[in-house]
Amino acid sequence: MKFTTFLQDGQARLGVVDGDAVIDLNRAQPDVPAGLREALRAGVDLQAAGARAIASGAPRAAMAGLTLAPLVPEPGKVICLGLNYFDHAKEGGREKPEYPWFFYRGATSLIAHGQAGILPKVSAKFDYEAELALVIGRRVPRHVAQADAPAYVFGYTCFNDMSVRDYQKRTPQWTIGKNFDGTGGFGPVLVTADAMPPAAVGLKIEGRLNGEVMQSANTADMIWGVAETISLLSDVLTLEPGDVIVMGTPAGVGQARTPPVWMKAGDSFEVEIEGIGRLVNPIRAED
Amino acid sequence: MKFTTFLQDGQARLGVVDGDAVIDLNRAQPDVPAGLREALRAGVDLQAAGARAIASGAPRAAMAGLTLAPLVPEPGKVICLGLNYFDHAKEGGREKPEYPWFFYRGATSLIAHGQAGILPKVSAKFDYEAELALVIGRRVPRHVAQADAPAYVFGYTCFNDMSVRDYQKRTPQWTIGKNFDGTGGFGPVLVTADAMPPAAVGLKIEGRLNGEVMQSANTADMIWGVAETISLLSDVLTLEPGDVIVMGTPAGVGQARTPPVWMKAGDSFEVEIEGIGRLVNPIRAED
Repeated sequence: MKFTTFLQDGQARLGVVDGDAVIDLNRAQPDVPAGLREALRAGVDLQAAGARAIASGAPRAAMAGLTLAPLVPEPGKVICLGLNYFDHAKEGGREKPEYPWFFYRGATSLIAHGQAGILPKVSAKFDYEAELALVIGRRVPRHVAQADAPAYVFGYTCFNDMSVRDYQKRTPQWTIGKNFDGTGGFGPVLVTADAMPPAAVGLKIEGRLNGEVMQSANTADMIWGVAETISLLSDVLTLEPGDVIVMGTPAGVGQARTPPVWMKAGDSFEVEIEGIGRLVNPIRAED
Repeated sequence: MKFTTFLQDGQARLGVVDGDAVIDLNRAQPDVPAGLREALRAGVDLQAAGARAIASGAPRAAMAGLTLAPLVPEPGKVICLGLNYFDHAKEGGREKPEYPWFFYRGATSLIAHGQAGILPKVSAKFDYEAELALVIGRRVPRHVAQADAPAYVFGYTCFNDMSVRDYQKRTPQWTIGKNFDGTGGFGPVLVTADAMPPAAVGLKIEGRLNGEVMQSANTADMIWGVAETISLLSDVLTLEPGDVIVMGTPAGVGQARTPPVWMKAGDSFEVEIEGIGRLVNPIRAED
């Protein structure tokens, strides 16, 4: 089953996808909270609610006519992995890491499918990173075993972890270069875990700049897969419903090319993941 | 004026402090949202609401009898600065940094005054860091000038940025070592900016382990003050009402001592900042 988040009257609302159409779940079933995070926190069985909505005669809107929002507009946490594909670590001149390079994004960095990524005033080194992302469905027990971890994933989506490289490297802490407003493309749809291969292994992932393939890899190439990442994080902290994990990017980023390739106003970058879909973000300059 | 956040029936509620007593603002004035972040986002004039509540005969509870919550239990962002006191950078063997080392904390790491800091199962290198923290009151315009920045601060409080040093240093990204559950002491009270020196400069700050002074400095020693930090961040992102900035720790942390000092179960650490108060967190082992 597929879900999306769209804007109506300025409010982000959870929709279940039925072919080319979207049903507003809260409108169809008022006991379902209007947001994905809130519905997951409330313990709603969203697959059952989605199935009921699709089976009913609930009003549908064409997906193509909707303005989307980030899939989870205000997640509790957005935890990102750096250097999770060995080819990408190598292109940055690094060894194979021994532990994930975790950093966080804040909600103010997130944008929807179709929304513009913002080339900052203060930098011209604006890069793309095609990534798989997942949304946690249920509170993960601390110290969860790898074998048990994937069951806590509600679903998977696409992410563009756009990076302001000079800010990312001003200090050893990458966080600030990953948190510019309008730099985290997130969507367009979430595909529930049951409709994907276990732990989302074996999916083709591509990143294209103005239609040209810049990144092409497979989620099987990740150093830390979904199960191991969740298990490692559970040694540290509590993953909650609606939390997001962004799984890192493969080789082919702009900064590693000769000469480097930076995104500029008027460009368009798309992330496509097999079985999920295509996240497109045009690029425009900051006002 | 002073505010605090306390727990009642499992819900975090904003209170205004009147001497040794606390008034539940939402109960006294039902149009004021029950949480600090929500009230700030709604644009409530909390100083006026607090003054009305204090002037009225609204019911009061003794502060000493309350169970507190983290001052902002679910902030949009918690942005922390590393190495913001030169003496602390030096004790870590580092030069004076040229830009703040920013990293983020998630809400699951936050704890209240009086709540236990959690010594993790997976590490014994559990350190303390006494810090000044601030809560943003109004949305900060992008690229705000330093001179205009302090006006967006609602108030100041104490923070203990407890750090799991081996995880912090497993990779160059500190984030994961700063995000263990139960490691971010935050409170007990917020003092509004008007009751503090401009930009909170010139305040004595101390950290004490089991009563012994381990850190003693002055907020005037910060490399990047409150105004400059907000201005720098506004080049990158939008600071929103209820966002938190944690301003870094002075020299004297446990890892820089010979031999190193690590917190253990049964210890107690307190952060005291002149004009604000004292944040106390006992330390216990993870279950």
